Amino acid sequence: MANGTLVLIPTPLSGQPLAFSHPPEVLSRIHKITDFAVEKLQQAVHFLVKTGHPVPEYKMGFHPLDKHVTGEQLQDILAVLQQGRDVGVLSEAGCPGIADPGARLVWLCHSRNIPVEALVGPSAITLSVMYSGLNGQQFAFNGYLPVDSHRREQTLKTFEGRSANDEQTQIFIEAPFRNRELLGAMLELLQPETRLCVCWNLMADDQWVVTREVQDWASASLPENFENKPAMFLFLATPRQKAVSGKKSARSKSTGRGSRTTGTKKGLHRKRYNPD
Amino acid sequence: MANGTLVLIPTPLSGQPLAFSHPPEVLSRIHKITDFAVEKLQQAVHFLVKTGHPVPEYKMGFHPLDKHVTGEQLQDILAVLQQGRDVGVLSEAGCPGIADPGARLVWLCHSRNIPVEALVGPSAITLSVMYSGLNGQQFAFNGYLPVDSHRREQTLKTFEGRSANDEQTQIFIEAPFRNRELLGAMLELLQPETRLCVCWNLMADDQWVVTREVQDWASASLPENFENKPAMFLFLATPRQKAVSGKKSARSKSTGRGSRTTGTKKGLHRKRYNPD
Repeated sequence: MANGTLVLIPTPLSGQPLAFSHPPEVLSRIHKITDFAVEKLQQAVHFLVKTGHPVPEYKMGFHPLDKHVTGEQLQDILAVLQQGRDVGVLSEAGCPGIADPGARLVWLCHSRNIPVEALVGPSAITLSVMYSGLNGQQFAFNGYLPVDSHRREQTLKTFEGRSANDEQTQIFIEAPFRNRELLGAMLELLQPETRLCVCWNLMADDQWVVTREVQDWASASLPENFENKPAMFLFLATPRQKAVSGKKSARSKSTGRGSRTTGTKKGLHRKRYNPD
Repeated sequence: MANGTLVLIPTPLSGQPLAFSHPPEVLSRIHKITDFAVEKLQQAVHFLVKTGHPVPEYKMGFHPLDKHVTGEQLQDILAVLQQGRDVGVLSEAGCPGIADPGARLVWLCHSRNIPVEALVGPSAITLSVMYSGLNGQQFAFNGYLPVDSHRREQTLKTFEGRSANDEQTQIFIEAPFRNRELLGAMLELLQPETRLCVCWNLMADDQWVVTREVQDWASASLPENFENKPAMFLFLATPRQKAVSGKKSARSKSTGRGSRTTGTKKGLHRKRYNPD
């Protein structure tokens, strides 16, 4: 019997109607699946109901897949796939496997020749890079900064140095109740010319995005309940002439390149990033 | 008069129907726009026709926005926005501003208080991270590697070291006609246990994804026309105990954190990445 497919299903970032975030064929694909590996059961069921799934909840199979998932629980999911049934992966919000559980299971599927299918939907990281106006030719998602202020200071300096050297946009997330503290630390520690973007509650009605040089942030008025909503922090330092491993200068000497490569292409990253 | 909005519009990665990649409200939003900043005119018009745009092409305004865009051309686009008209940004494939032109214009809009709106759609980078089964808690998109073989070797070693230190998945693109050469270099230079993912022609009917340890790649049979299609290369080295700036150990000591933050959450990245 052929294996089922592991289907990676993005979920909404906010309470907006799915028509803003989910292509119709994605919803059709979900409606063919009755086994799910979920980060949070209640939210997963709520999402499936919202899609208009034709199968009632009590006829579906649900398996836990959060960051504490055990090897045994992963084997249970693989067993469903090996019985020929598809399994949909639903994280709390956004894309499974990106700053969310899922990657371990995908790796196991690759190593067992179980097919994997990723569907199109919202990603807070992708949207934040688009919104930021910072360098999208090189960027790194780094998760959380340390909580301890001394270590956070060291780490911010390290990442700002890397951003300046490699012209790499640095992306961080934070627990909402620390949003204001982290913003304060960034405004204090980063260079005045570093460009800082804060995105707040992406895709919600009260979404908020501001990108300014650090020295101009003092004039930005924050939303009143800045401590209550999910935020992302992105920055890009003023570039240094020296690039990592001589990468850019080496590449800029190349000739005879194909003009078309993929959805992602060469571009600004071989020049100084100079948006004006 | 209020400024118009700069609308960042993802375009398809392959020839699939838009129902697989574009939410209906995204298409409705596009149909309200008649001015566009485009990377390639012919592809942009083809996409707009495919969306069923109600306005004929000759009644639309098009502005060039490729990697060679001049300051003057950007000012022309800003002038349209400042006349109160929305401008849609269309890159060749995928999301504007991510490995594609757009970021300079977004930054200019931020600095002039012109609103920016990013729509949901396909991103080859996002899909490749989901598909890879590699670490999606920390990842970096690095664009192209150097063409010169000596510099490429140095750069690959640098990025593999960073991957091992920071448990950061490294993502690269390549011109299709160099796909085989780059894969050969990676298989020769990377550590045997480094996990390497190659995605090829994402979202097309002949899409192809393989993730294996480098030492197991010899047994992978490549698609016959591997030199002709857009590919992405991702790798994750075996982690070292020492983490960048003591970041993980610092964070793992924290307590009392909010359990919910955003579409992106804390997770695997504070443990060793150990998928089995």
